[in-house]
Amino acid sequence: MNKIVIFGVGLIGGSLAIAIRQAHPAVEIVGLGRDGELLHAATELGVIDRTAASIAEAMQDADLVVIATPVAQIRAILQAITPHLQAHTIVTDVGSTKSDVLAYARQALPADYRGFVAGHPIAGAEKTGVTAARDGLFHHKHVVLTPDAHTSAQALQSVQSLWESAGAKVVCMSAQQHDAIFAAVSHLPHLLAFALVNELASRDNQVELFRFAASGFRDFTRIAGSSPEMWRDITLANRSALLAELDAYQKQLRQLQTLIEHQDSAGLLAMFEHASQARNTWAESLQSQ
Amino acid sequence: MNKIVIFGVGLIGGSLAIAIRQAHPAVEIVGLGRDGELLHAATELGVIDRTAASIAEAMQDADLVVIATPVAQIRAILQAITPHLQAHTIVTDVGSTKSDVLAYARQALPADYRGFVAGHPIAGAEKTGVTAARDGLFHHKHVVLTPDAHTSAQALQSVQSLWESAGAKVVCMSAQQHDAIFAAVSHLPHLLAFALVNELASRDNQVELFRFAASGFRDFTRIAGSSPEMWRDITLANRSALLAELDAYQKQLRQLQTLIEHQDSAGLLAMFEHASQARNTWAESLQSQ
Repeated sequence: MNKIVIFGVGLIGGSLAIAIRQAHPAVEIVGLGRDGELLHAATELGVIDRTAASIAEAMQDADLVVIATPVAQIRAILQAITPHLQAHTIVTDVGSTKSDVLAYARQALPADYRGFVAGHPIAGAEKTGVTAARDGLFHHKHVVLTPDAHTSAQALQSVQSLWESAGAKVVCMSAQQHDAIFAAVSHLPHLLAFALVNELASRDNQVELFRFAASGFRDFTRIAGSSPEMWRDITLANRSALLAELDAYQKQLRQLQTLIEHQDSAGLLAMFEHASQARNTWAESLQSQ
Repeated sequence: MNKIVIFGVGLIGGSLAIAIRQAHPAVEIVGLGRDGELLHAATELGVIDRTAASIAEAMQDADLVVIATPVAQIRAILQAITPHLQAHTIVTDVGSTKSDVLAYARQALPADYRGFVAGHPIAGAEKTGVTAARDGLFHHKHVVLTPDAHTSAQALQSVQSLWESAGAKVVCMSAQQHDAIFAAVSHLPHLLAFALVNELASRDNQVELFRFAASGFRDFTRIAGSSPEMWRDITLANRSALLAELDAYQKQLRQLQTLIEHQDSAGLLAMFEHASQARNTWAESLQSQ
């Protein structure tokens, strides 16, 4: 590879640029984005080599295009790059939902194009922006790739190698499977945390409530401090899987309500033990990695 | 004060003993509990001066009794100490729910006794047991005291001074108000976390789900790793406030479902922004303390 174009040089795009430069020092990295100051900062920091005057100029002879913008911009970027797309150019993204991105790609990209590889690195962090970008963000992290019938094996292999050179563990699955898994382990928890804080912050005694909230509340609601725009986009993009998760979760809450109403001590203990054991087993497996 | 008796020398009871010894080096601290090994360890560590052969012997000339056992044992301990209670002896507890404890106290203690002061230090920690006990656990932490019509001002003042000498900030309110606040900011979040982990751990693909769970899930579910017995007891003790909280929360989830079904982008953004701003404002206020 000689030239890589990255749309959106924030935490993920910037950290990937840093990893690419370590693995492939000769590659030219061109950054694009809506925020001129951010691109200037990324250039000053040496995260990218340069920005470009136009999408046409950036796309010229590009080997790989990484779309690392918020999910809501992916569709427009796919449309904007299509007129300038060369057959050998591979395109990938880092969006948190994958079925919608594959649908956009099918609409925007040429019917005979085989170079699109949808992807999702599982590496968030509380900080965002290029100043938070760092080497090693993807070390030992999962990256899910969701190739479909339009994806060539060669394109898939190239994107897989790129992430592996950044230290990540690549897993392939269908977009539908990806979206169902992340609805359960990421998107639903975010909605639950937003809903709790929204509920408490709507009350007359919210000052008193927050005054007595302690470390358990702090950890539980940490994800409720996440970007509202990003989570609006993810929620809408993955709405069918999320509605199914919300149904299942409400069923759990109704079971819990029944146990409490019946003062079912053994039933409550069994539920809490099941959850506590599963959670602690999982947390121990993380520490031993 | 010359003699203090502590039932349950774990994290809270042990840390309070350490704080008392710092503030009042001459006071004799007697520890009692069901676990002989734990009491031996507490004596070896110097957390308590000694244990006692019987409750009668421990209670003899005690100025203060602190019940720092799990909530489910408080009732039995109140019954056990009542025959040995002297008029000047003050009794307090550290349970996470207060209406039930006050009801037990009224049942068990003599009708003319004015020395019971129900309390709840807001200082949990992930570790438990006397080996986790430490000086400073209560520094700048809230302690809620819930006196009622049977509590003398003198007893309240003594317990307040005790906690203040341990570095805590004492707040007084009714037991009902306490239980409503902690249902919202502590007990409900625990139930929500237990319910989520229970749901995911009940599925056929749980191994895959947990494999892709990341740091957001880790923080959100940290409280689902808490003691099942303790949370069964708290849930049952505070069931009416918790059922009200579960109702309010399910109403939030139904509103969220409606927003998603209608693909109401502005409505979702408003809800997430409200939550995110409230959460971040609160988190910043913690850091500036």
